[in-house]
Amino acid sequence: MIKTKKIHKEIETLITGAGTILISSHVDPDGDSLGSQLALRRYLVSLGKKVWIVNHGSIPSKYMFLPDIDRIVRIDNFKSEDRFDLAIILECPDPGRTGDVKHLIGANMPMINIDHHPDNSGYGKIAHLDSGASAVAEMLTEYFLEVGYKIDDPAATQLYTAIITDTGRFRFSSTTRKTMEVAGRLIELGADPRYISDNIYYSFSESTMRLIGKVFSKFELFDNGKICLMALDNDMMRLNDFNSADTEGMAEYTLFGRGVIVGGLLKEMGEGSTKISLRSRNSINVGEVAHRYGGGGHNNAAGFQIDLPLKAAQEKILKDLREIVNGTV
Amino acid sequence: MIKTKKIHKEIETLITGAGTILISSHVDPDGDSLGSQLALRRYLVSLGKKVWIVNHGSIPSKYMFLPDIDRIVRIDNFKSEDRFDLAIILECPDPGRTGDVKHLIGANMPMINIDHHPDNSGYGKIAHLDSGASAVAEMLTEYFLEVGYKIDDPAATQLYTAIITDTGRFRFSSTTRKTMEVAGRLIELGADPRYISDNIYYSFSESTMRLIGKVFSKFELFDNGKICLMALDNDMMRLNDFNSADTEGMAEYTLFGRGVIVGGLLKEMGEGSTKISLRSRNSINVGEVAHRYGGGGHNNAAGFQIDLPLKAAQEKILKDLREIVNGTV
Repeated sequence: MIKTKKIHKEIETLITGAGTILISSHVDPDGDSLGSQLALRRYLVSLGKKVWIVNHGSIPSKYMFLPDIDRIVRIDNFKSEDRFDLAIILECPDPGRTGDVKHLIGANMPMINIDHHPDNSGYGKIAHLDSGASAVAEMLTEYFLEVGYKIDDPAATQLYTAIITDTGRFRFSSTTRKTMEVAGRLIELGADPRYISDNIYYSFSESTMRLIGKVFSKFELFDNGKICLMALDNDMMRLNDFNSADTEGMAEYTLFGRGVIVGGLLKEMGEGSTKISLRSRNSINVGEVAHRYGGGGHNNAAGFQIDLPLKAAQEKILKDLREIVNGTV
Repeated sequence: MIKTKKIHKEIETLITGAGTILISSHVDPDGDSLGSQLALRRYLVSLGKKVWIVNHGSIPSKYMFLPDIDRIVRIDNFKSEDRFDLAIILECPDPGRTGDVKHLIGANMPMINIDHHPDNSGYGKIAHLDSGASAVAEMLTEYFLEVGYKIDDPAATQLYTAIITDTGRFRFSSTTRKTMEVAGRLIELGADPRYISDNIYYSFSESTMRLIGKVFSKFELFDNGKICLMALDNDMMRLNDFNSADTEGMAEYTLFGRGVIVGGLLKEMGEGSTKISLRSRNSINVGEVAHRYGGGGHNNAAGFQIDLPLKAAQEKILKDLREIVNGTV
């Protein structure tokens, strides 16, 4: 606790000395990246800082309801000549994982690294790391309460969204008493659980809903139902004009079945490439599988892309999943 | 707060004087009924009481993982000659809503009525009512902490299950800072969010998953997508050998679509009868519609059964839903 207070103080001091600040996160930002970055921006703006949020990758459309979301710039569109005094990198185990944003970070530019990934490399002038936190937003909320920043309605919404998505709706084992207390505090400060949940989890387009129907009609079970694979082929994707980011949440459905311990959603990305999202229960580690293919994620939720057409990708991943399932059960 | 302390004390005193206690809840018990009853039973047993939980209606199979669930007796199977000194009725607006259990409650038997429904009639020797509570389990947890009952792992699991289901996964507007704090406390005391969520929300049989596929392929949207109806006809139900209680959660899917403000799931129950579960967002009150047909529920989640075949039932309910949608939007 005293250690946390000390690092909060150090962060505050470093921020105080900076005029123009860059915020970024990992490639293909998720709910925790986006919500945490936006809340951090509000705090910095309240201190009179000039702030840029720049990310590599696009924003899944379910997050477009977030206050200030239009303040996030894709690196491809970033044209400013501004020079940054400080970079604050959130939810990113290594600066290389910011993708092309890393080119904006000068060799001597101080970095603050705030993360809850256990494999964070510890980079930055200040590395504020807490692998026990459910989300970076949980850490940020504590920081804000500590330094006396008055979290307003939009910031509460941003932070709550980050926490709810990074805990899989208060479901992952990272969800602790503290997580719930922080979320409760954010509700009191203006986060509306219904509005936020509706926007994230109950906001499918008609065509996505029909696609869900297809996915649930055509899934396959393997190894006595322990493994469930669902697939979206090119035709299904094209027919419904999908953005790959918008089908991300569907990976969750692979674990809907009783007895399923590993699930995989395969999305055909044009010809010859397949994006695979993996989900698992308990101690089954799919993060390790994703790492093997250059992807990333956590023990129970991970993903990667592979240069194989759908069928071949399915055969390959099924082999890997069988190995971890039979190695652990 | 002082008022709550006083009523907690009164409850404790009444319980102290009783030897054999009946616990019940409303017909067709839900997650809050079941979890709260089971936790209350553990507490009473710890005090050396003889306890019976008797309900009218069956237990949805998703709750069969709950510790002590086999302690719940259906009124049809209740054969004991025990005489009760006290009845504690949870989550039940009126003693009549206990169904046939009401015949077990003698005219002079003291009753404790613990509920969070705003329309509770205030019956009982003690009526502990808090319409601001997200669930009766939230109220019970506070009671347990107040009287010094050491909530153990099974009780924490029972209470957390009650809260998560009665808030629709911390989603309904009843979810407050206090709800989250109570849930956090229960996690600390042994409730496992992952295990509980997996059992309730990720535990479909293979045939149910295929049924979800059908429901999502065949839903209908009306009035510019504001109303979504899904239907399970006799063939679909028979084909998959479903218990009606097991498809209850599917009503949630009717609100998956962006822009949908009212949803209805229609289940054909043999010939000539249809069970309808309604869901709505925000201020749209489907509870009122369900009441009109002799059903029950809350503003945003309600249900009833109607003596009409599927098609005719759909026409009738669509007419009602159009009225409330166009009256409010």
